[in-house]
Amino acid sequence: MRYLIIGGVAGGATVAARLRRMDENAVIVIFEKGKHISYANCGLPYYVGGTISDRNALFLQTPTSFGNRFDADVRTETEVTAINPVAKTVHCKHIATGKEYEEGYDKLVIATGSVAVRPPIPGINAPNIFTLKDIPDTDNLFEYLQSLSISRETIRAAIIGAGFIGIETAENLSKRGCDVTIIEKADHVMPTLDREIAAQVQQHLTDNHVKVLTRNGVIQFAHHEQGTEITLESGETLMADLIVVSVGVRPQNRLALEAGIAIGERGGIQVNEYMQTSVPDIYAVGDVVETIHPITGTPQLSLLAGPANKQARICANNLAEGNKYTYKGSINTAIAKVFNLSVGATGLSEESLKKAGIPYATSITHTASHATYYPGGDMVTIKINFSKENGQLFGAFVIGKEGVDKRLDILADTIAHKGTVFDLSDFDHGYAPPFSSPKDPVTVSGLVAENIIHQYVHMIQWHELRSLWANPDSQFLLIDVRSFLEHRAGSIPGDVNYPLDELREYLEDIPTDTPIITYCAIGLRGYIASRILLQSGFTNVRNLAGGFKTYQLMEKTME
Amino acid sequence: MRYLIIGGVAGGATVAARLRRMDENAVIVIFEKGKHISYANCGLPYYVGGTISDRNALFLQTPTSFGNRFDADVRTETEVTAINPVAKTVHCKHIATGKEYEEGYDKLVIATGSVAVRPPIPGINAPNIFTLKDIPDTDNLFEYLQSLSISRETIRAAIIGAGFIGIETAENLSKRGCDVTIIEKADHVMPTLDREIAAQVQQHLTDNHVKVLTRNGVIQFAHHEQGTEITLESGETLMADLIVVSVGVRPQNRLALEAGIAIGERGGIQVNEYMQTSVPDIYAVGDVVETIHPITGTPQLSLLAGPANKQARICANNLAEGNKYTYKGSINTAIAKVFNLSVGATGLSEESLKKAGIPYATSITHTASHATYYPGGDMVTIKINFSKENGQLFGAFVIGKEGVDKRLDILADTIAHKGTVFDLSDFDHGYAPPFSSPKDPVTVSGLVAENIIHQYVHMIQWHELRSLWANPDSQFLLIDVRSFLEHRAGSIPGDVNYPLDELREYLEDIPTDTPIITYCAIGLRGYIASRILLQSGFTNVRNLAGGFKTYQLMEKTME
Repeated sequence: MRYLIIGGVAGGATVAARLRRMDENAVIVIFEKGKHISYANCGLPYYVGGTISDRNALFLQTPTSFGNRFDADVRTETEVTAINPVAKTVHCKHIATGKEYEEGYDKLVIATGSVAVRPPIPGINAPNIFTLKDIPDTDNLFEYLQSLSISRETIRAAIIGAGFIGIETAENLSKRGCDVTIIEKADHVMPTLDREIAAQVQQHLTDNHVKVLTRNGVIQFAHHEQGTEITLESGETLMADLIVVSVGVRPQNRLALEAGIAIGERGGIQVNEYMQTSVPDIYAVGDVVETIHPITGTPQLSLLAGPANKQARICANNLAEGNKYTYKGSINTAIAKVFNLSVGATGLSEESLKKAGIPYATSITHTASHATYYPGGDMVTIKINFSKENGQLFGAFVIGKEGVDKRLDILADTIAHKGTVFDLSDFDHGYAPPFSSPKDPVTVSGLVAENIIHQYVHMIQWHELRSLWANPDSQFLLIDVRSFLEHRAGSIPGDVNYPLDELREYLEDIPTDTPIITYCAIGLRGYIASRILLQSGFTNVRNLAGGFKTYQLMEKTME
Repeated sequence: MRYLIIGGVAGGATVAARLRRMDENAVIVIFEKGKHISYANCGLPYYVGGTISDRNALFLQTPTSFGNRFDADVRTETEVTAINPVAKTVHCKHIATGKEYEEGYDKLVIATGSVAVRPPIPGINAPNIFTLKDIPDTDNLFEYLQSLSISRETIRAAIIGAGFIGIETAENLSKRGCDVTIIEKADHVMPTLDREIAAQVQQHLTDNHVKVLTRNGVIQFAHHEQGTEITLESGETLMADLIVVSVGVRPQNRLALEAGIAIGERGGIQVNEYMQTSVPDIYAVGDVVETIHPITGTPQLSLLAGPANKQARICANNLAEGNKYTYKGSINTAIAKVFNLSVGATGLSEESLKKAGIPYATSITHTASHATYYPGGDMVTIKINFSKENGQLFGAFVIGKEGVDKRLDILADTIAHKGTVFDLSDFDHGYAPPFSSPKDPVTVSGLVAENIIHQYVHMIQWHELRSLWANPDSQFLLIDVRSFLEHRAGSIPGDVNYPLDELREYLEDIPTDTPIITYCAIGLRGYIASRILLQSGFTNVRNLAGGFKTYQLMEKTME
């Protein structure tokens, strides 16, 4: 068998390595347009920031070492310019020599990945405006930074787009001493995250001297001697010495499109569960394909390393053994380090759930990352979106300083297996004081959701309380059940303070015909107060989700 | 309703708190023999070691604060001496005053926990021989340490029993400057763990100057002026100034036994899935009960905080609402910090699987905790035990410096949901370079297991290779596929060195009629070599599980 693979970075290299293990006698040829194969895509921002100090560390394999180990014919700096599915050939061009030739295949794999989007903003094509997608991008940005740092004390950097890569780049440029501003079109950073989590990221960026401008797009870059003037939709302008555009990527689908291979509605190559395109002898994997979301059932681009790897292995297995292995789709679990915080997302956000027309409830919990009596812990915030009918977990977000990745992974695993919030509360986790508590933050998120489903508590979200406030006709009693000292240090205007441990003494003072809202610092005491009130003749009682911590943060970041 | 709860530490306090939230009007009385309720049981070794410096941090609630918040009648220093299930009363005794009285109940909860085992070894009842189970134990040990440290430069401490608590205590006494020896009867430390994982713990203890004596029990403590002479089964003796006995706990079942409540074969109170004892109005939770293991279906004691908490909540729900909530049993996920290592176990060990007569296969993988090009990572070793028939995951062990707890939790979750190794390889985890790799260590463990199940590779365990060596009639060719430099730095005697990337050139030199064993550093290159050989006409090829790393460790710790 003769296999050709177009693209040698994540998906393509993995297909080749697995294919060789499955078939020692196959001919395997990899075409890669760039100089490098199988490099550390996700490490690029950290090389720019200096955390990865050795550029060689970015190269997991050289074309030679990879070729030797997997007995593969690796042709770098070779562009495939056309596919002929009828003749079963590809047309290739060696970039340096210009030499062109045809190469025949039995089976072809397209792993051309994605390309960074460069929106058509006037002035965007300038030597100080970068994307950060591959090694040449990285080298360019790195060298420009080096040259600037000779002549300037402070480099003004602007990041256009506050997605995962934008935020990682912001942190790394900040670590290099740049004065960084992030500009984001959506109303919050990391637009794929739910707002309550994104607000913590935004606050943390600000705390680390990164300026954040949301609800703002760029309409022009004007290049002057003293820097580039960026004009925003709001009319504001700011000056920057270097700009990184990080507004997303799109599948590199041209080859497939021109060969008549079916392209889906999201712009990716359509594949079936075997990673096979509309042309039976052509498979495709990685950023260039679109697959079906396991919950919504709609096409999506995944654009993540984990799914690319899984697809590649499945593709190679199916090439070698016939279509036997199936790809189950991705819930797009993603995580980023943002200075001292870690933030992760998995499954469906509120926005995606609304778009898909799936009804849901939410829960926000702030829980200690490990036993509070053991030093070094911190709060972990978990937001989950779930079905109020059967408890199915749809989406989850986690943020905090410690143990974020592990909670994210458990939540992801639960979503991927179509698990429920009852699985979370039943979670049989490893507990010792340095690692967790008898009730893990994940357990607590499940227990709160259970209480919501069983109607042991009724929640009010921060934005619902804000709306109530905004309406002068609203009648409600807001009870702060924290201690007097906590209350005095800051509270929601118009509340009364009945500390939880004395609440039972105040019951006679509370009118039975007014809706009641309880709140505390994070939601736990407010819940206990809600239980006391609901069982003492008060029928309309709600507890503020996430407590004062979430409410205050949202007030602050919405300003 | 009038609820009496016997025991106010983990299980009892949780039942009371949940019960109050479920029923604001109930009468709830807690009897606790000791002075404290709801204290930090699992924190005790860390208070001894000084990591937790404030003794008050151990008390999560005082009897007064708990009583106020949950409107509960908390009676500390009150022992329940008898239960009368016919009259539905308990007989109580206030320890300080000696006052005795009866108290009636509608429903009773037994949460008397467990008691540290003190084996009947001559000389064991001495003021310098401690257990570490509750606050008085801790105070006694702490004060004794303080007093000794005035008169001695180095305190010689012996720990009898190398279970989780024994190991934690060893580390903490070592941190206090003690010269620590651990004595364990089994052939390896942490006897509930599989040997390959326990060996890493043992090595790490030794590296941290803790002496470890295995396959050795104590037959006598003889107290002299210059310390206690401990005589071991082997005839050896050692001297110690203080001794901590940590050989396990047993359910505190006397009250139940005397009341005619059914006790199970493991010595715990028998409960059904609602946490109800053989007497319908009496429930029991925590260390004192035995429940059914979800995989083996046999009775077990769990003796862990997580299960106690879950049982308590389920018990309270059922007390308040009738038997609606069920306990699903525990797979006993447990974790410990051991100096710089973390080590965790979940599900069934090889020994338990053998005892239960369940056939299984195993896989050992050593994988980087996060992307190798991002600084700060380290190897995580995962051992999994699974069904070769359908891939069901039975047990898992994780050890390493970073990210152990998160891998353990994912593996535990998979076991708890009767998941398979295919779920592990399909794991949709959060990846960014500081946290993981596109293939997480959990993914890798699943992929290797898949390869074993699909017979893409045949494994040989370190002990099987040792047996081969021990038999002079064995015919086999052992190939080290590491590089020449790695080979020269240490290898298995009698091997040949054909580096992987050159292996294809050596194929003609390899006899086709001899069984072949491939090995490398950790198992990955050995696997690739196995694939090359299996597809090049060699039919009897096995790869050494865990590679030279596991083999060398086991050789060293078995000596």
